Amino acid sequence: MKKEKRQGLKAVYPGTFDPVTNGHIDIIERGSVIFDEVIVAILKNPEKEPLFSVRERVEMISHTVSALPNVSVDTFDGLLVDYAEKVGAQVIMRGLRAISDFEYELQMAMMNRRLRKTIETVFMMPNETYSYVSSKLVKEIARLGGTPAGLVPLEVEKKLRDRFENE
Amino acid sequence: MKKEKRQGLKAVYPGTFDPVTNGHIDIIERGSVIFDEVIVAILKNPEKEPLFSVRERVEMISHTVSALPNVSVDTFDGLLVDYAEKVGAQVIMRGLRAISDFEYELQMAMMNRRLRKTIETVFMMPNETYSYVSSKLVKEIARLGGTPAGLVPLEVEKKLRDRFENE
Amino acid sequence: MKKEKRQGLKAVYPGTFDPVTNGHIDIIERGSVIFDEVIVAILKNPEKEPLFSVRERVEMISHTVSALPNVSVDTFDGLLVDYAEKVGAQVIMRGLRAISDFEYELQMAMMNRRLRKTIETVFMMPNETYSYVSSKLVKEIARLGGTPAGLVPLEVEKKLRDRFENE
Amino acid sequence: MKKEKRQGLKAVYPGTFDPVTNGHIDIIERGSVIFDEVIVAILKNPEKEPLFSVRERVEMISHTVSALPNVSVDTFDGLLVDYAEKVGAQVIMRGLRAISDFEYELQMAMMNRRLRKTIETVFMMPNETYSYVSSKLVKEIARLGGTPAGLVPLEVEKKLRDRFENE
Amino acid sequence: MKKEKRQGLKAVYPGTFDPVTNGHIDIIERGSVIFDEVIVAILKNPEKEPLFSVRERVEMISHTVSALPNVSVDTFDGLLVDYAEKVGAQVIMRGLRAISDFEYELQMAMMNRRLRKTIETVFMMPNETYSYVSSKLVKEIARLGGTPAGLVPLEVEKKLRDRFENE
Amino acid sequence: MKKEKRQGLKAVYPGTFDPVTNGHIDIIERGSVIFDEVIVAILKNPEKEPLFSVRERVEMISHTVSALPNVSVDTFDGLLVDYAEKVGAQVIMRGLRAISDFEYELQMAMMNRRLRKTIETVFMMPNETYSYVSSKLVKEIARLGGTPAGLVPLEVEKKLRDRFENE
Repeated sequence: MKKEKRQGLKAVYPGTFDPVTNGHIDIIERGSVIFDEVIVAILKNPEKEPLFSVRERVEMISHTVSALPNVSVDTFDGLLVDYAEKVGAQVIMRGLRAISDFEYELQMAMMNRRLRKTIETVFMMPNETYSYVSSKLVKEIARLGGTPAGLVPLEVEKKLRDRFENE
Repeated sequence: MKKEKRQGLKAVYPGTFDPVTNGHIDIIERGSVIFDEVIVAILKNPEKEPLFSVRERVEMISHTVSALPNVSVDTFDGLLVDYAEKVGAQVIMRGLRAISDFEYELQMAMMNRRLRKTIETVFMMPNETYSYVSSKLVKEIARLGGTPAGLVPLEVEKKLRDRFENE
Repeated sequence: MKKEKRQGLKAVYPGTFDPVTNGHIDIIERGSVIFDEVIVAILKNPEKEPLFSVRERVEMISHTVSALPNVSVDTFDGLLVDYAEKVGAQVIMRGLRAISDFEYELQMAMMNRRLRKTIETVFMMPNETYSYVSSKLVKEIARLGGTPAGLVPLEVEKKLRDRFENE
Repeated sequence: MKKEKRQGLKAVYPGTFDPVTNGHIDIIERGSVIFDEVIVAILKNPEKEPLFSVRERVEMISHTVSALPNVSVDTFDGLLVDYAEKVGAQVIMRGLRAISDFEYELQMAMMNRRLRKTIETVFMMPNETYSYVSSKLVKEIARLGGTPAGLVPLEVEKKLRDRFENE
Repeated sequence: MKKEKRQGLKAVYPGTFDPVTNGHIDIIERGSVIFDEVIVAILKNPEKEPLFSVRERVEMISHTVSALPNVSVDTFDGLLVDYAEKVGAQVIMRGLRAISDFEYELQMAMMNRRLRKTIETVFMMPNETYSYVSSKLVKEIARLGGTPAGLVPLEVEKKLRDRFENE
Repeated sequence: MKKEKRQGLKAVYPGTFDPVTNGHIDIIERGSVIFDEVIVAILKNPEKEPLFSVRERVEMISHTVSALPNVSVDTFDGLLVDYAEKVGAQVIMRGLRAISDFEYELQMAMMNRRLRKTIETVFMMPNETYSYVSSKLVKEIARLGGTPAGLVPLEVEKKLRDRFENE
């Protein structure tokens, strides 16, 4: 019996990305090497007040990952597993930095597995340079007049400066 | 320009497996769905006094995963990244259960990345049923006369009973 | 000298229970086997905006634990140790799932011990099936159109569906 | 229908107690207030090289808890759940200090639950004064010529001094 | 070549201190023994709704540390590292209690190091008596009518009582 | 009243250093900027079987820190606090990398404080590049034929190679 040709392996990398950091970009690059296709999926969360609009976030990520041919950027609402199924992804991809990450990420992965058995969550580690970087911390520093140089893409650094200078 | 056909994605799942538990088997099965090929790689560690010989461990795993066509069992010594490179694997696959796991696993993954940039470590979670199972605990229970039913493959359960009855 | 007959052992199981999950129910059942009496005590927290009213929460829990003769449901405000003393409980009962739980639970238990030396906090573990379930996550899934089947009592599942369909 | 009179609640407090510390004693005292009977059960572990013999350990604990009428001291080997069942205990009692404790304790409690569904593990916290005390650390200090005053019962302090002076 | 006389070692101890607890005071006292000068620096955070005004917080701390000649109290906004540089401090001083502390504190220290290489963060442990005390928990207890005696300076205890009696 | 001139601040940095890593060196350098004097104190532990003799370890560290005028290398046995007192150090200095570190380090610091109230433990973080490096891991890699380049001083790298080539 001939084993069926395996389909391309497609991974969803979900998040708020408000804004994308170099830690996120590092994970996207690592994922693009392993998986046939990576979809960066921005959660449209109507309950949170973001700093950047969904459209701005799509643009910032698209611009930064434009050199990676198998990476695309999309948005979603509703359950992540429904979205993953709709786009034909077998894998949810997440970065792991520290303990607090770990607890929360495990909880979400367990829940997503319960909601959809066929979709697996895999975790990857960013470079240790980004082990302490988060979107929230980056925004806080920019708000206080600091420059998160080297922690976010140049495009994002510029956008952050514009945003807080206009305040 | 035509994008090069991606090679099959090959993952190494390294460990001591003394003996293999259902938590390990769960990770192997999940890996076999995602990756084109999974190599279960038993570390030949001359410094540790194992309960089962390397040969017994190969047999127990081989027997248990015989229904998974893209999983094979092998042994290695030396650096894991050297072995992974030799067999053409791009990925090291590891299970994540709990905090203590997490710390150690991250440390090893960081070190392996430093030793070989081209090989990525990905983490997966076993079913929560196996969140507390370890080879060490399984041996301890068998040694005290308990039966780790449901926590190890039947083959392993039988072998454990034989081993400790003969003591 | 005759040792005084020990009074029945009464435990308070405090929480917000918005809504009660199968993880909570699991702890209540375990407690009802150990203690002579278990009082599920719903905190009336005027500062939080709950999904279900205190009355609805009392009803959902009462309905679910109706088969356990030594379990009752009550509400309280003010300090938990004052409430426990008022109802004659010697024990505060709490579930422990994960690290984040652990830190917070220890802090609260230490503080309650300082406020009332005579009341002891004991911790129990839910079944591992519920190791990732929380009221917050259950609400989030229901809000996004998912069904937390098997994670909450049927009564609660129905109520969640009603609530979010009406939105 | 008349509810059956509940049997006395009996708890086993297992450990190596090599030697017993004030942290252990604190947990024993707290347990003796909650449970009708507490059995301190010393594990006879032939694989470990203890500092004090099982007999010495029984004597040190017995002496220290002699004022607590519902506490007794015993020894056991084999599976803890077998021992608990044999002596008619419904509860295994454990102290919780820190993260490393927590992980290990949860793992053991999960395993014991799997081996015997009818026996529940409950956790209690020692006074924060003992949050950093362990038998191992106490021995290490005594070995280096230090005096762990206030961290172990007087009886144990004296025994430790004798032991290491004779070396 | 003669080694330059080292300047006095100045440490900043930043925080919200809403209100100061005995855990904070413990760290301040320990710092005042090690460093030549300690500046308690209250963050003026316009986004948070504090219980006590910045002025009240300055007064409560100043009153409590008045016996320590090398401790002063100040306020700041903007980036902490900018403030530390402005006042000539080489060290940021922080207390470490528990895991959740640890993760957050490490993240902040890493970020501050990135923003200003010349300023080092050092961590100290409060007495274990204060291992579970936080400003948030203290306020919660006072709000519910409890008295956090022994956990905050007398001055703060009185202020808390006044504040919540007037509600 | 004239405030007494504060004595120079002297810190002990204790450890096994078998061998010293770049993570240790990083902490030593940071300490030498803050403290007037840093004594690297190698524990002579007769119970452990080290890879390098105490003398070799002294030489490797001395060679690496020779450019830091206020750092010296020494050896000790017995209680750390006795040693610190003998050399007139007010501070014990320790690096903090990860959770497992943290638990152990806190426990030791608490115990040392109990043994000698006058000596304070302060913690510093190594550069994130060294967040996963340990002496044990470095030895393991060298033993397996790997080169821990960039993780240990050149001197140590050479020594490791010599040691394991001769095996």
